[in-house]
Formats: sequence, C-alpha cells, structure tokens
Amino acid sequence: MNVEIVNTGSELMLGRVLNTHQQWLCRRLADLGHVVTRQVAVADRGGEIQQAVREALGRAELVITTGGLGPTSDDITRELIAQMLGRKLVPNQDVVAHIERFFAKRGRPRPLKTEVETLVPEGALVFLNETGTAPGLALCLEPERDEERRGESEEGSGASRPSSILHPPPSFAKQWLVMLPGPPRELRPMFESAVVPLLAREFAAEIFVCRTLRSTGVGESRVQEMIEAAVQSMVGAGLEVGYCARPGSVDVRLTAEGGKAAQLVHAGEAEVRRILGPHIFGCDDDEIEEVVVRLLTARKQSLALAESCTGGHLAHRLTNVPGASAVFCGGLVSYANEAKEKLLGVRAESLRQHGAVSEAVAREMAMGVRAAFRSDFALAVTGIAGPGGGTPEKPVGTVFIALACAEGVAVEQRLNPWERLTFKDVTATQALEQLRRRL
Amino acid sequence: MNVEIVNTGSELMLGRVLNTHQQWLCRRLADLGHVVTRQVAVADRGGEIQQAVREALGRAELVITTGGLGPTSDDITRELIAQMLGRKLVPNQDVVAHIERFFAKRGRPRPLKTEVETLVPEGALVFLNETGTAPGLALCLEPERDEERRGESEEGSGASRPSSILHPPPSFAKQWLVMLPGPPRELRPMFESAVVPLLAREFAAEIFVCRTLRSTGVGESRVQEMIEAAVQSMVGAGLEVGYCARPGSVDVRLTAEGGKAAQLVHAGEAEVRRILGPHIFGCDDDEIEEVVVRLLTARKQSLALAESCTGGHLAHRLTNVPGASAVFCGGLVSYANEAKEKLLGVRAESLRQHGAVSEAVAREMAMGVRAAFRSDFALAVTGIAGPGGGTPEKPVGTVFIALACAEGVAVEQRLNPWERLTFKDVTATQALEQLRRRL
Repeated sequence: MNVEIVNTGSELMLGRVLNTHQQWLCRRLADLGHVVTRQVAVADRGGEIQQAVREALGRAELVITTGGLGPTSDDITRELIAQMLGRKLVPNQDVVAHIERFFAKRGRPRPLKTEVETLVPEGALVFLNETGTAPGLALCLEPERDEERRGESEEGSGASRPSSILHPPPSFAKQWLVMLPGPPRELRPMFESAVVPLLAREFAAEIFVCRTLRSTGVGESRVQEMIEAAVQSMVGAGLEVGYCARPGSVDVRLTAEGGKAAQLVHAGEAEVRRILGPHIFGCDDDEIEEVVVRLLTARKQSLALAESCTGGHLAHRLTNVPGASAVFCGGLVSYANEAKEKLLGVRAESLRQHGAVSEAVAREMAMGVRAAFRSDFALAVTGIAGPGGGTPEKPVGTVFIALACAEGVAVEQRLNPWERLTFKDVTATQALEQLRRRL
Repeated sequence: MNVEIVNTGSELMLGRVLNTHQQWLCRRLADLGHVVTRQVAVADRGGEIQQAVREALGRAELVITTGGLGPTSDDITRELIAQMLGRKLVPNQDVVAHIERFFAKRGRPRPLKTEVETLVPEGALVFLNETGTAPGLALCLEPERDEERRGESEEGSGASRPSSILHPPPSFAKQWLVMLPGPPRELRPMFESAVVPLLAREFAAEIFVCRTLRSTGVGESRVQEMIEAAVQSMVGAGLEVGYCARPGSVDVRLTAEGGKAAQLVHAGEAEVRRILGPHIFGCDDDEIEEVVVRLLTARKQSLALAESCTGGHLAHRLTNVPGASAVFCGGLVSYANEAKEKLLGVRAESLRQHGAVSEAVAREMAMGVRAAFRSDFALAVTGIAGPGGGTPEKPVGTVFIALACAEGVAVEQRLNPWERLTFKDVTATQALEQLRRRL
C-alpha cells in the first residue's frame, strides 16, 4: 500500500516553523504496518496545495494532509480540497455544538472566525477536535460507496454533484483522503482516537518489523565494518540494514517485510548485539536518559546533578522521563564561581589553582552536590561551550565530567568542539553514558 | 525562481529521525531571497530517489538533495543521481587527500568504507566537508556549459557521455542540482561556505521581505480579529499575512515580494505593533529567553531560578542564549521536598500546610533562591506536570510561578493541562513572560 503525507503551511516553506508532523505520523503509521512512501510540503497557496494533493492521490491509497483547517485567512486546505473534488461545503451541527462548548468552558465568547471551521465537505467523516476547535475530516474516494454515504448523510442534498476531477485518475478501487489540523497537540490525539480505528477498518496492515539498536562510542563507518559480514546472509534473505549517525551515537536499523520479517530482524539483532556488545545502550525509542532512569529505579538508587556548561540540559533531559522524580533528587546549575563555592563547597583554592574548567573542580562539584542532596550518585559537568573562553591547553569544547558515588569519584575529560546546542547535547549524553556504564 | 528540496533517508520515512533540514534550508534560502516552493522526502530506495529528483528537475531551477552521500551501504544518492544523469563516477584526489587528513588528525586508520566518498560524478563541483568526510556535490545541468566544464576537468575523459535522461525535460536554460550530506553539523557549514557563494554567482536574488511578530497572551482567532481590518488595504496591495499558533504564543507573519515589499511589510508591522502592543514580545527568531537576557544585560541585572516541575528546562532555555552567563547566576532543580527545605529555606510548615504545589511554597522558593544566589531577580516554578498527582482543587497542569525582586514577590497561578514536554515548555514561557513584563 502507498501512503503519502502532504504538509501544508507557508511557515514551513519559509523555515519559520519546524515540521514535526512528518516524523510523528511516519512513525505511528510504520508502527501500524503502513510505511509512508512519500512526504511533501507546500505553501498555503491554492495551486500548490491542489497540485500536491492531486499528485498524491494519483499514487497512493491513503493520503494524509496536515494544516490549513483553522479559523484564519491562510487556512485554505478545506476549501481547496472540496473545490478540487467537486464537493460542496455544508455546515455540520456536531461541530457547531463542539465549538460552542469549547468557548463556553473557557468563559470566552466564540470568535466569529470559527464559523468557517463548522463547514465540512459533503460526505466527509468528521473527527471532533478534543483539544481545539477545527475538526479533522476524512473522505472516501470510492465512487459507489461515496454515493451510498451521501444518501445516509443528514446534510446530503439531492442535488447532483460534479464528478471527481482527479488527474491522473486514481487506479485504486478505494482511496482515503484524511485532513488533520496543524497544531501537534490537536493532530496527535485526533490521529489516535479517529485515524487509527479508520485505518484498522479500511486497510489490511502489512507485516513490517523494525528494530533500531542505538550505540555509542563507535563511528558510523566502523559500526558497519564491524557488523556487515555477520549480517550478510540475512541481507540476502531480505533484511534491510540502515545506519544513522547522531550527535554522540549511531543507530543501526533492522527492517524486514512479509512472513519471515520477525525472524529475520530477530536474527539480525542477535548478531548486532553480539558484535557491538556494551556499545549498545538501548533500542527503538530508548533515549539514554530513559535507560539511566530505568536502571536507577530498578536498583532503588538516586542521582543528583551539578551542571555548569550544560546549563540545565542534563536535568531537563532526565525530567522528560516520566517517573524520573523517583530517582532524581535535583540539581544545581552553577554558572558563577561564587555559586560553586557557596552551594557546592568547591574550594576557592581549587578554582584559583586549576580554573573552573578542571578535573579538580569537576571532582569537588560532584562530591559537593552528592552531599547536598544525599544521593547515591552525582554527576558534575564543567567545560568551555564557546565560542569564547578557549586557551591552548583548554581549547573550546573541553569538558570534565565527574561521577561520584560511595566508592569515590571518577573524572573523564572530553573534547566536544561543536556549536552551543550540540555541545550541550553531546556532553549530556557522555555524562549519562558514564553513569550507565557504572550501573 | 522555483527551488525544491529532496530529503532522502529511510529513517525519515520510518519516523525514526526528525527532519530538521527542511526548516533550516528553507529558512536560509528565504533569507537569501529564494523561497522554497516544494520539499519532498523519500526513502533510500533507487526508484523513489530517482523519481523525486527527476520530478523536481522538471519544475525547479535549483534542486537541493540531502543525505545518502556517506560511507555506508544505504548511502546511494550519489550513485543513483550519477546514473540517472548518465555521468560516470570518477575518483577525486582532493577528496582522497581530505579524508586522509581527517583520519590522520584523529589518529585513526581510514576505514575502507570511505573509499566510495572519493568518487564524484564527472563535471561536478566538489565541496570539501569541513566537519566530516563525505563531500557535497553540485552539478550544473546547462548542456553547453557542462561540456565546457568537462573539457577543463582533470578527470574528464574523452569518452562520449550518454545525454541527459530527465523526464520531463527541464524547460530552463540552466539548472543546478546540489547534493549535501545528511548530518546537520556537516550540511550547515557546507551550505554557508560553498552553497551561498554558488547561489550568489548563479542566481539573481528576488526581493522578498519577511517579518514575524511574536505575541503572547491572545488566542489565534482573536489576534486575526484584532488586526485584520487595519491591514486590509495593505493586503490588497500585496502584503501576505499568516498566523501560526505555538505553545504559549501566536506568530503573525508579514511577507511581500517585489519593489514595494519593504514598504508594505514595514507599514503592516507598524499597524500590528500598534494594535497588539505589549502582547508582542519579539520578532523573527527572537525567543522570549533571548529577549529576557537582552533586557537583563542592558539593565545590568541578574537572575536566579528555582525549578520544580520544569525540571531544568527554564535554565536550559536561558543558557542556550549566548551571553546568558553575564546575567544568569544559576538555578536549583528541586524535585524533592527535602531539597526545597534544605537548599532553598522553604519552611516545613508551608510544605505541610499548603503542599509543595502552592502559592506559599512558590513564594518561599523564589525568595530562597534569590538570597542563595544574591541575584536581582528570581523565578520559582512549582506545579503538577501529570499524568498523576492531580486533585479536584489542584488538577493536573496547575502551576504557581513566583517572581521575586527587591520590592517583594508576585505569584501567578496557571493551568497548563498539556502532556509533559508541552507542559514544561508552556510553563517556562509563562515564567519568562512574567519577568519580561516586569522589566
């Protein structure tokens, strides 16, 4: 089955907003056995949206659009698609009632602009929006079935409807065009509650198995060199192996389709695990912070943090993990030396003699924060994020990471000469990996 | 001029990786006067990559591909495009030398896999990779010019080359196909150092002006209702107005093309600023944390943080701003009540009587952290991120935000019933906005 996504939005084409729908929808659809074959983004302009949707309908059984269903003047997807398919827009009373309730609950008058959101193309299935006002819409483009549906529909008038003007005409017996609202917090629950059941009813899932093994400490080329001979026979039998280099880690992705998919992926995983061993920190969606929270939870142990150059990013990543509060006592973000002395008990002598970015200070920060929070483990990070502040002995990107526990403190030195955000991210990953290896 | 982007990568279609190239490239190209008309993503499969590139070349003067140039077996873009265009792959000595240097510097042997990266399509411009091994490639598809280039090239053999097999044939006098490597830290510097000069030489920039005004505290429909009458005449004259709802804020985007673009956008901005007034916290790329750092820097004032439910996210956002260290003393992430008492001086009595999520505790956290860091301002956040922990009086999403300064403490209560990451993000934005309004 071919599945295509059309993301509409001038803000996407101007690069003003990050398109997170592509990843989210592709991921959920793959998990449901429908791998997306193409994703397209176009601006909120009539010709471009219609052309992109028309082309997608010429290739795919399922086309999902995002965006352009809201109340403002640049929300034009609903109208353009109705026009292209020759369907009238008719008011839907369920949507009217839903929007009334939405504003009543918030004690605000319903803005006149929301009127347009109550109009739906004739014969469309309507998905009420649990977290907003604009409904989602689904159109089945199988002509006979469509006629039947129109007969059932309350709003269906007896008037004749122009026939579909798709070009090229679809070669499928049945197609679905699903339109979802743009804001992620509206799209995501709507996909789960309305689109997932629709897909289950209308499309047979294909057998598709995907497993991603996440490794750290080895480069991308070297990872492939290490494993390719061992998985060669499986690749011959239909296993696909993909590699993806990320900041601080390399993903190995094993996928297969059809009856032997699970068996092939399973065999591939066993080989990759055997070869990469402790370099693998997790699989699929595992982030290293989740693995660390899981390990600490299982051991009933706790963690505290003292962050200088990562500026709270390490705490932020840990507290993104549901349940982190059971193991994470807290942390201190200490940019100023005074805070390092006063709150962490770092000695003025160490700061003077070795500088804030030094093994000695990292060590004292870790010990200090472990004592302050009375935690089992403590991680401390101090480094030079740049762009300024580097010296010949300690160039920009220099980092000291200290791990303190009851047995003592271990400090590792790293060089991460990346721009600010990548620097914070890679450094945080290294600190978490240092703790993971200890657990 | 039409510009299209083709992102290749099975990991994108399986939703295993977020596509950040779309936003980054669209943004940079728009800034250079070349608005991207379409972006397409396809899997690393021969037929799909070739079809997508062929279609893009049938529509656009500039096509940029990302990904598929690396050393592993799923990096197939280079070869597929060379094949499609009927160009031989020839070894390039500059690339060989560059890759040798790359590994020599790191004291590692050069992996055999990197051999494929030294092959480039005949006649391609080669962009050496400052932060990796795979070079970028650019092909000019103007037939005559191309022949000339081949004559000059060292690698050019006298052998005849199959003619271009584009379908549909391009209707442009000259086209450029630019291939960039997938990792963002390789793609971005290469775009700046090699693609920007190429575009400046080969394409006349169109006049395009874009201004985004970022507002907070008013919903999307209401924003449009407030401003549309005032900008109507400018819209008639060619101004485009777009709206984008984001967590905690609404962007108003003003764009125009041609000779009067700057004038139209300028007049639109004046109207929007007049009407939305203090709701506008910044423009274009301004994040509210940048505005806050700027304001504090100008006033030579400092800030400390006490975070409970935002778990370090507020500190992380602030420390993403270059120069934040001049105004940000530090912060405490205090998940456990014990840490609130011991490190912030929150009274056990307040915790017992009102609970950790209360106005009283927020107030004492702000005062405590302000005293500990001796800062001018302090923000404290305590709330219930959920999914558990809600009560009828304090449902999930309840947040207290306290702002302490020399004059006293102000506490605001909010309800942010979103999922964990959105909750942290919206709450952090509200805290920063509370401080911004005070500055």
